[in-house]
Amino acid sequence: MDISTLTEAVMGRLFVELEASGRHVHVTKEQAQTLFGHGLTPKRPLSQPGQFLANERLTIAGPKGEFQNVAVLGPERPAAQVEISLTDGRHLGIEAPVRPSGDVSNTPGITLKTDRAVLTVPNGVMAAQRHIHMHPDDAARLGIRDKQLVRLQTYTARPVIFEDLLVRISPDFATRVHLDFDEANACGFQNGDLGRILP
Amino acid sequence: MDISTLTEAVMGRLFVELEASGRHVHVTKEQAQTLFGHGLTPKRPLSQPGQFLANERLTIAGPKGEFQNVAVLGPERPAAQVEISLTDGRHLGIEAPVRPSGDVSNTPGITLKTDRAVLTVPNGVMAAQRHIHMHPDDAARLGIRDKQLVRLQTYTARPVIFEDLLVRISPDFATRVHLDFDEANACGFQNGDLGRILP
Repeated sequence: MDISTLTEAVMGRLFVELEASGRHVHVTKEQAQTLFGHGLTPKRPLSQPGQFLANERLTIAGPKGEFQNVAVLGPERPAAQVEISLTDGRHLGIEAPVRPSGDVSNTPGITLKTDRAVLTVPNGVMAAQRHIHMHPDDAARLGIRDKQLVRLQTYTARPVIFEDLLVRISPDFATRVHLDFDEANACGFQNGDLGRILP
Repeated sequence: MDISTLTEAVMGRLFVELEASGRHVHVTKEQAQTLFGHGLTPKRPLSQPGQFLANERLTIAGPKGEFQNVAVLGPERPAAQVEISLTDGRHLGIEAPVRPSGDVSNTPGITLKTDRAVLTVPNGVMAAQRHIHMHPDDAARLGIRDKQLVRLQTYTARPVIFEDLLVRISPDFATRVHLDFDEANACGFQNGDLGRILP
């Protein structure tokens, strides 16, 4: 093993890559049909295997404001989910609860708009709880179990220790920390920055 | 000393009150004259003695977007300073450096607009480095010196440990932690929340 391969291996054992998730929308197959006239089409793959950024984009509108040209992620899901930051919520006039992705019960609704349709979904708006997607190999190595909450030190311009990061473990996952834009900006995140899970 | 006074005293020794600073502008006397036709007038006092929220408000405009009805803080200062979050910077199209308040050298400019005037200031835009205003009595008790960087644990909905908080000590200060809105939202801050300086 040469030095650079060794260095990479050591880094990979100590550090986890950070990613910032901008506001985005997940829709059902039926909603994609209504909003776009067809299913979602992939523009580029995301870091999580099988997930993609769609070519399709839309407007999200709340009582106080809206955001145009918002990213839609595929593939389609069983329920609509609109992930925003708390800062976005202020602009929209929607108080978004902080929730683990997928837990849309008792979340506020929002209006989705395209040039084809205007669709009000009764719930699904949330600020996604910060989380770590983790491959089982990394989880075994780090001694972490599914749904464990961990602390993460960021190696960023404005260093922060995030507490209560929810770890989700699946063989379908690439190991990545997902922060929303409030969190990413609060720690001065730049692409390529790393974090370390604290014992 | 009764129990509630005692409790308050102990709390005051362990915890520091958090405050979130929204985007705001400081102007010089000459700029206030140009923009408003008179000096700044106080609407209400801020937590820091002598500082006030002005009745006067203005629009800040960057190459990509603007914010209307932005707060102006008084009294006037020797140089204009426009404090925004990194999220605000994205909307405005201005890359705001993270700086200690007052350090406006080599910061980007911005346009200030009122119904009387449009004034482009050549610099002064920053994301204020998170900081603690501290009274010397608290500093002596905690063993902290002026300009020291400390770590702060937040007791908030999304708990975080902020590293590198700059402490400024002055007999004119009330002891308060100042976060910007990215930081406040990243930790789920609500009015009245407390933090604790870690050893």
